[in-house]
Amino acid sequence: MDWSAEITYALRRITPHVRRTPVIRLSLTGLPEIEVKLEHLQHTGSFKARGAFNSLLAAQVPAAGIAAASGGNHGAAVGYAAHTLGHKARIYVPEIAGPAKIALIQRTGADLVVVPGAYSDAAAAAEAYIAETGAMQVHAYDAPHTVAGQGTLMLEWEDQGLKADTVLIAVGGGGLIGGALAWLKGRRKVVAVEPETCATLANALDIGPETETNVSGVAANALGARQIGRIAYGLAKDLDVPSIVVPDSAILAAQKLLWEEARLLVEPAGACALAALLCGAYTPEPGEKVAVLLCGANPAPDPFG
Amino acid sequence: MDWSAEITYALRRITPHVRRTPVIRLSLTGLPEIEVKLEHLQHTGSFKARGAFNSLLAAQVPAAGIAAASGGNHGAAVGYAAHTLGHKARIYVPEIAGPAKIALIQRTGADLVVVPGAYSDAAAAAEAYIAETGAMQVHAYDAPHTVAGQGTLMLEWEDQGLKADTVLIAVGGGGLIGGALAWLKGRRKVVAVEPETCATLANALDIGPETETNVSGVAANALGARQIGRIAYGLAKDLDVPSIVVPDSAILAAQKLLWEEARLLVEPAGACALAALLCGAYTPEPGEKVAVLLCGANPAPDPFG
Repeated sequence: MDWSAEITYALRRITPHVRRTPVIRLSLTGLPEIEVKLEHLQHTGSFKARGAFNSLLAAQVPAAGIAAASGGNHGAAVGYAAHTLGHKARIYVPEIAGPAKIALIQRTGADLVVVPGAYSDAAAAAEAYIAETGAMQVHAYDAPHTVAGQGTLMLEWEDQGLKADTVLIAVGGGGLIGGALAWLKGRRKVVAVEPETCATLANALDIGPETETNVSGVAANALGARQIGRIAYGLAKDLDVPSIVVPDSAILAAQKLLWEEARLLVEPAGACALAALLCGAYTPEPGEKVAVLLCGANPAPDPFG
Repeated sequence: MDWSAEITYALRRITPHVRRTPVIRLSLTGLPEIEVKLEHLQHTGSFKARGAFNSLLAAQVPAAGIAAASGGNHGAAVGYAAHTLGHKARIYVPEIAGPAKIALIQRTGADLVVVPGAYSDAAAAAEAYIAETGAMQVHAYDAPHTVAGQGTLMLEWEDQGLKADTVLIAVGGGGLIGGALAWLKGRRKVVAVEPETCATLANALDIGPETETNVSGVAANALGARQIGRIAYGLAKDLDVPSIVVPDSAILAAQKLLWEEARLLVEPAGACALAALLCGAYTPEPGEKVAVLLCGANPAPDPFG
């Protein structure tokens, strides 16, 4: 796959529809100065809008429309992209997503189905619907157009003058880190950060790509994929990406710090990468310039909920 | 006063201590595309840090330290700037500020005095303390170093590539709009926006500069100065600045819209300028490019309070 070309085309496709999210330098208490990209200000509150628009714009969407299964952010992004582009969309959401994310999806105008159980149950329901109707599936993280869409974020960040030697990125199913690795190809160090309670990539790199991980904890409704995507796994393995895990307590402390010192309100998953610096799970070398991606801002409870 | 020089020096002084706050283009439901500066991500959650740092860095601070009276944001900024620069600070806060802003000031390490009553009571208490101890006063809005410090915001925004013909700015005592007018000197149109419940500049422009306005409503703890600053009044009068007022309901709707569609959590005062577009109090001409300043992000209740 010529990822550079795919990601460059993806950015051209999605530019009319997504926000060029801003960057800021922050010196937070106890941490070195970091570059931060505020991707949580993206449409529907996460980077997922990039992959969703790219997937819909790169395909011939059938009359039956779009279907997706999602813990929340991907579903909102697909619903929003479908609505913007004039397609029907049906989103299957596991109960675990919680009322804030379910309300977010409802606001996009998508047809919403809440499925009792976990993400895998929602995925099964989506697949049955797709088989019956011929609706188009948009995978949350393990499809080339999804990965290329998420990869536009790192292209954009470099265009905005990213200085960092090292970029910390939270990992769920691997769409975002896959896109980042596909764009950077080792030109900068990428560090994968996962909650201890959703250590899917870490386990896959340790034990094997087919490993199924039990997921729980404060970020499970965004980072709780039970198996890492094949695309992300392949890129992480080839590029020897370090994968580190952080306790939920560090994620909540990072979330609180971002609010208290910078008025950035993110969800736990959005604070996961910063948590690695805060708890010392990742300690930069002297002089190492570090960047942190804030990837999601759909917290529960919603302050206006 | 050579405001261009004052503001240029001010930016040089404060640059090591303040954030270069990011800008973003937003297309929100029902509105034209706007340029938005996220100044609410500044240290202590408002633009006030600029004026506070400039005031302290431009003066010889006495051993008795700093004293200020503030409805919240100015007090937090002065407390933070004093702590950063190694000075003692005592902040007098009217009860109206509410627990979220009072906690914000406490976190800066300042010596905090909560005064029963309104802003004027806190100001009287601060003046008595200053007379007794020789502490240095930092005025919230009507002193040249305060105004020049706030003016750095517009210098910075132009340096970031501001395209707008027209900039909408919320007005309390006039420090921020004074600084903006002092920098722009009519090169772009500036529109002053005030809550109907705190129409201090509008009343002064209508009736006279000494007019005292009764203040109340959702943004009173940030925009509730009873009399407009002389510096801001003079600049607004000379430059024929249009002053428009918006209902509190529009401010709350703008605050909710910023959260729901862009994950920007601001306080009511921070949404006041946007409210003018939302409720039609300000309608841009066809082709007129508009920018909106988000000036404060210390909402109550605090989502982590």
